[in-house]
Amino acid sequence: MNPTVILLLHCPDRQGIIADITKFVTDNRGNIVYLDQYVDRIEGRFFMRIEWELDGFLIPREKIKDYIRTLFGARYSLEFNIYFSDVKPRMAIFVSRQSHCLYDLLARYEAGEWAVDIPCIISNHEDLRPIAERFGIPYHVWSINKDHSNKAEVEAAEMELLQKENITFCVLARYMQVLSDDLIAAYPHHIINIHHSFLPAFIGADPYKQAFDRGVKIIGATSHYVTAELDAGPIIEQDVVRITHKDTPDSLKLKGRDLEKIVLSRAVTKHIERKVLTYKNKTIIFN
Amino acid sequence: MNPTVILLLHCPDRQGIIADITKFVTDNRGNIVYLDQYVDRIEGRFFMRIEWELDGFLIPREKIKDYIRTLFGARYSLEFNIYFSDVKPRMAIFVSRQSHCLYDLLARYEAGEWAVDIPCIISNHEDLRPIAERFGIPYHVWSINKDHSNKAEVEAAEMELLQKENITFCVLARYMQVLSDDLIAAYPHHIINIHHSFLPAFIGADPYKQAFDRGVKIIGATSHYVTAELDAGPIIEQDVVRITHKDTPDSLKLKGRDLEKIVLSRAVTKHIERKVLTYKNKTIIFN
Amino acid sequence: MNPTVILLLHCPDRQGIIADITKFVTDNRGNIVYLDQYVDRIEGRFFMRIEWELDGFLIPREKIKDYIRTLFGARYSLEFNIYFSDVKPRMAIFVSRQSHCLYDLLARYEAGEWAVDIPCIISNHEDLRPIAERFGIPYHVWSINKDHSNKAEVEAAEMELLQKENITFCVLARYMQVLSDDLIAAYPHHIINIHHSFLPAFIGADPYKQAFDRGVKIIGATSHYVTAELDAGPIIEQDVVRITHKDTPDSLKLKGRDLEKIVLSRAVTKHIERKVLTYKNKTIIFN
Amino acid sequence: MNPTVILLLHCPDRQGIIADITKFVTDNRGNIVYLDQYVDRIEGRFFMRIEWELDGFLIPREKIKDYIRTLFGARYSLEFNIYFSDVKPRMAIFVSRQSHCLYDLLARYEAGEWAVDIPCIISNHEDLRPIAERFGIPYHVWSINKDHSNKAEVEAAEMELLQKENITFCVLARYMQVLSDDLIAAYPHHIINIHHSFLPAFIGADPYKQAFDRGVKIIGATSHYVTAELDAGPIIEQDVVRITHKDTPDSLKLKGRDLEKIVLSRAVTKHIERKVLTYKNKTIIFN
Repeated sequence: MNPTVILLLHCPDRQGIIADITKFVTDNRGNIVYLDQYVDRIEGRFFMRIEWELDGFLIPREKIKDYIRTLFGARYSLEFNIYFSDVKPRMAIFVSRQSHCLYDLLARYEAGEWAVDIPCIISNHEDLRPIAERFGIPYHVWSINKDHSNKAEVEAAEMELLQKENITFCVLARYMQVLSDDLIAAYPHHIINIHHSFLPAFIGADPYKQAFDRGVKIIGATSHYVTAELDAGPIIEQDVVRITHKDTPDSLKLKGRDLEKIVLSRAVTKHIERKVLTYKNKTIIFN
Repeated sequence: MNPTVILLLHCPDRQGIIADITKFVTDNRGNIVYLDQYVDRIEGRFFMRIEWELDGFLIPREKIKDYIRTLFGARYSLEFNIYFSDVKPRMAIFVSRQSHCLYDLLARYEAGEWAVDIPCIISNHEDLRPIAERFGIPYHVWSINKDHSNKAEVEAAEMELLQKENITFCVLARYMQVLSDDLIAAYPHHIINIHHSFLPAFIGADPYKQAFDRGVKIIGATSHYVTAELDAGPIIEQDVVRITHKDTPDSLKLKGRDLEKIVLSRAVTKHIERKVLTYKNKTIIFN
Repeated sequence: MNPTVILLLHCPDRQGIIADITKFVTDNRGNIVYLDQYVDRIEGRFFMRIEWELDGFLIPREKIKDYIRTLFGARYSLEFNIYFSDVKPRMAIFVSRQSHCLYDLLARYEAGEWAVDIPCIISNHEDLRPIAERFGIPYHVWSINKDHSNKAEVEAAEMELLQKENITFCVLARYMQVLSDDLIAAYPHHIINIHHSFLPAFIGADPYKQAFDRGVKIIGATSHYVTAELDAGPIIEQDVVRITHKDTPDSLKLKGRDLEKIVLSRAVTKHIERKVLTYKNKTIIFN
Repeated sequence: MNPTVILLLHCPDRQGIIADITKFVTDNRGNIVYLDQYVDRIEGRFFMRIEWELDGFLIPREKIKDYIRTLFGARYSLEFNIYFSDVKPRMAIFVSRQSHCLYDLLARYEAGEWAVDIPCIISNHEDLRPIAERFGIPYHVWSINKDHSNKAEVEAAEMELLQKENITFCVLARYMQVLSDDLIAAYPHHIINIHHSFLPAFIGADPYKQAFDRGVKIIGATSHYVTAELDAGPIIEQDVVRITHKDTPDSLKLKGRDLEKIVLSRAVTKHIERKVLTYKNKTIIFN
């Protein structure tokens, strides 16, 4: 497959922008292979994902960003990012003790479903090291004390590793720790979490117990970008499963695991494919 | 179809109760046509729905309740209710201005899906009177002032009507008023409401706007029994539908309407069929 | 709301077409309020729905079609249709004896959900006349003999009515008759049927009985455009509901009714909004 | 947890059977921890799953089967099976080249979700050997020639292994071979397959391509017991996922993988928990 340029952008909605952008690509002999756009009429904002082949495109790869900034940046008050399909994102996985999400991520990775590199797995427990080793991925453990006294230190070490490995985004695969604001700020809307409830219901600890106590008839899972406020970041994907009065907190956990891993992996897929835009704490998901 | 006795019961779980109850029915020549039971092992509580034919049953219809109370009441600390399939529940519908739930209820009623009588529709607005008239059901309007100054008076009139019509349960079909504690107390776990969100998310006013603002990817509807605490009663039925970033508060309302009417009607069906037991703010739904 | 022009088109995929079409609209001062497109890379075909405000558009309403044909028709081998939002489609409903789909359609119509006119309901039975009368819609009955000896005659009368009423599309709301090829040919991809199964499973008669006999765990409903081959036309919408071994053919029918009416109404909504394109026996559904 | 006896039975429906069976258990001081029953009124057949603690039960473990046969066998024309919760079923997995179902099964096994032993994985390809080795499970490869000339020989070797390992049931985790009637007959309703469609739609080869060609809006997966007729055995579990016109055969495969693994694992869970009864090519699934 030919390498492609992926342009993700948003700006105040103005007539002519689609014509302008597509004309720019085709005039420079770019073969468009994907185009989707969306206008938020309430916010008056335009969102677009466009992808074209690099081969034959007249503007050299390293200058495309400049051209777009120059031609459209000020004119449309454009906010945008450029990606190349042959430059894989680099993903770090954070885990604690439960393995179901980790296996789901690694099995897809190994099966070649994703154009991604996974140079490290980070944990606060040794439990899942054997899984990491089977897949040949370095596994780093930093234990956080119960009183959180060494949390700053641990996160500093983690940040150093993330930078050393050129990590572009993080996945919290049932990582049972709250990240500090500094770490979150270093990866704005680039840390993906899975919360085991249908947010905004059952924020915080032990949502299956909360769901059981409330007597709901459906449980859910939510994958979202992490922000400073707990479980309140932009939602990428959700799904649900029906339960009955016969379910116990334990059976909810088992049913929930299947939701968690599928919902998390769907969100990671969208992120890897550069099909997510965030704006005002919401996501636009291209398909 | 032969008339049947329906016995709904719950009590502390003890070995032998199923054998005892089924033996009582069969010894008295009752032909069992339905039996379902459930043990809540966390609460240590036993729940059962059993139904048998009246024809040929040795105990006269009017004495069955006494026999059960005498034989099992104290022995098992039984809480129970007896219903006869040939005695239809009598249902009052409360509406405001939106017609979709009302039409769904009345269309099923007219099509003969439900063994129920609907002697009255109550509203705080005139809007839906023509619909009630088409189905030949008396429509009663009591307007509640904006300052709620006449609310007690209105509810007193409504209570009088409910009693006069021997209403056994009420359905709030998008009735946009909060009931007083007195009215709720008169029909404990016998007033069914439809809330247009996936409870406990988005309690209170305008849940579609709340869902839109939060950027969820799925919306829901919840049917529950009304209790004194707003939107906090035992949940009977829930369902959801997938949405996207393209949905607006208006399109959510339209998608939600289909959920609301189906979820409400499913809950009403279960109630009419006497397949719902409530215990500690949860429901056991037999099927 | 300002009236709009809706342009639905498809053609062989060629670079530049989006730029060309959007430029045409904006150059002529049309304010674009909706744009969605899709490229089928397997077929090499481009599909587009674009909608812009009539007010201020420089080309007079009655000449827009000509301009598009002249400017783009031959150049892009364009197949297209033009609609105006202030010209409502005219819908005929065909029913037999079951009322649930009819009520769902009429309740939406009355609630103002749809920009559509419904000048007639056609049936082979008298049963649903009272419903039509309540909504003030003329109800026409033509009985088809059991040996179908008068079928040609009946369909001729129906065709005459459809033409007299300027019907633009038909909805078979559980109409239990197979239409002749002539009637289908008069409304190519403009007759919407609801089939009470998850097509292509359980084609033909009594799909709930077929589903029961096969022991499936989920049942479905399918709304599709009618073509000459039975239950084989382009699918517009499908949905499913979970069942268990406890369901009987009768309970499947009841559960299925809710699916049927919702799935049919969703398909009708898409059709009324001119958001469906058909190509090679499939649908493109814009949203 | 105390070991339990699990009794799965069915017989012609007769009054008194529940009372009789539960009385037998409680009279012999068995503490019932699970009871569910179902009457198929169309077939006139009674189905039951009852589970009680072994500790304190008066009848010795090895004689329970005899007692039940003697006491109820002829009297009720009972068909039944006895299981002990401390005797794990032994499961063989058959795979070809795709890993997603295998990973899902093994990850659950390793996480301790299932009371099962997995002594062998059988394949016609070497591809997945590394996965088996990571989990420490012997991996056996027998290639079947393209002309199937050695199929009988291969299956004889497989049968020998299955017997040697005391395998009680087999799971075809996307095993792309049709089993011979002999192998199927050796494990009647004890070979679980996953078919990547919503059966009975799209039987046979390449169901995603069939689904794409038909233009369906939902795809599914079906787990069923293997019988002599292809894809026609008793269905244990099904699930579906919504698709659009934008999906290609390739994207359907990816979406389908998630369905396949979850649906297969749910079916395996039910089988391991001895919660499935089969009767006349259908399943009763206790929950």
